[in-house]
Amino acid sequence: MNEMIALLKQHRSIRKFTKDPVTEQQLDAILTAAQQASTSSNMQAYSVIGITDMELRRELAKLAGNQAYIEESPVFLVWCADLYRWEQAAKRHYEDEMPSTTENFIIGTVDAALAAQNAAIAAESLGLGIVYIGGIRNQPEQVSELLQLPQHVYPVFGMCIGVPDQSPLNRPRLPRQAVYFENTYKQGAIDSAIDTYDETLSAYMKARSNGKASTAWSQAMAGKAGPVRIHMRSFLEKQGFKLE
Amino acid sequence: MNEMIALLKQHRSIRKFTKDPVTEQQLDAILTAAQQASTSSNMQAYSVIGITDMELRRELAKLAGNQAYIEESPVFLVWCADLYRWEQAAKRHYEDEMPSTTENFIIGTVDAALAAQNAAIAAESLGLGIVYIGGIRNQPEQVSELLQLPQHVYPVFGMCIGVPDQSPLNRPRLPRQAVYFENTYKQGAIDSAIDTYDETLSAYMKARSNGKASTAWSQAMAGKAGPVRIHMRSFLEKQGFKLE
Repeated sequence: MNEMIALLKQHRSIRKFTKDPVTEQQLDAILTAAQQASTSSNMQAYSVIGITDMELRRELAKLAGNQAYIEESPVFLVWCADLYRWEQAAKRHYEDEMPSTTENFIIGTVDAALAAQNAAIAAESLGLGIVYIGGIRNQPEQVSELLQLPQHVYPVFGMCIGVPDQSPLNRPRLPRQAVYFENTYKQGAIDSAIDTYDETLSAYMKARSNGKASTAWSQAMAGKAGPVRIHMRSFLEKQGFKLE
Repeated sequence: MNEMIALLKQHRSIRKFTKDPVTEQQLDAILTAAQQASTSSNMQAYSVIGITDMELRRELAKLAGNQAYIEESPVFLVWCADLYRWEQAAKRHYEDEMPSTTENFIIGTVDAALAAQNAAIAAESLGLGIVYIGGIRNQPEQVSELLQLPQHVYPVFGMCIGVPDQSPLNRPRLPRQAVYFENTYKQGAIDSAIDTYDETLSAYMKARSNGKASTAWSQAMAGKAGPVRIHMRSFLEKQGFKLE
């Protein structure tokens, strides 16, 4: 195993940062790495907003669930799926109405994720820690207004970056046989893998919480089964994504 | 700049592979790196199908646009957004009907992309090359049948992995000022950035094609403006994604 795979294997989210800054050179390297990620047919259908204005940061932190680390991290990025820029380019040579399809929505969402993951790894290779902030989709309409996002751009997630001031345990992942299959999906492999992982994760939660919690994976997953962010569809429509 | 960032900056898609195999140890390291990627609330809402059956590979290659490298690459992976496994886990503790929301569709799509990008980087760190295959969405219904994907699982993209047998030029990316903004999106920055990038990419295309092509970016983007994969919405509905 080489050093880079060791780095990838070491990933855990960091939610507490020292007061040390992320330097401009570091941010530049992170963004350069992000830009070099794979992108569907070179559409580069994503944009990144770096939030340096602390008043704006406070407002975003409130909108994303009041997590202190959003306010306190030296760098906070909002990763957006962006079909607006593609449209501006295409319109120079294309006269019909531009399509607003589910396919393009997928392309923008995937391009944002690939670029962001490169940024995350670049940051971690510099000794920094990161956490993705799905909470940016809690109130996406207000976020989009604050960031002045044009139609056909939406915030997919945020990302805090900074020098780690904590060293949490790595969280174990699902058994391989529930995630990787040869040739065909194996529904029959799922149930026993969930049994195994429930035990693994329960033990991990116990260790991490000094015995206070021992939630199994399936219990945690049931907690996600209620109506979570059910505004996304109507928000996306307002933002111009017709999902045809 | 460290080695990891140098590696990330060197990325270019590889579409021609030597006959050298990808070893089991290499594939194991690649999948381990993938599994350690960030995931929304630990849902790990993705699965990977490795296509080792060569008859199946030929069929997938046909369905994905008949690209020879899909058939010829030592490893071909299909990355799927997977809400099925999450449902199986949650149902153990949740008795109401499970939701099928746009939010969960985003979570699955993003989780698949983050894991895949870790896999891509792990592969490149081992001296291998990769290319993402969006063409897997050309005929997703047939692909899903072949791979026996259950409801609430869909193929997001494929990925070829192997030892590179070509050394293409790095493709330059959009100017930073069209992709990264401070605090608010800057629509005013887009037009001149497209002008600049049209020139850059035109020169790159010329160099790469020995003078035979010089397509500007905006021209290439106009080529993506027609009706591309307009079946995705109805395919996803059939696959159980209600996108509520």
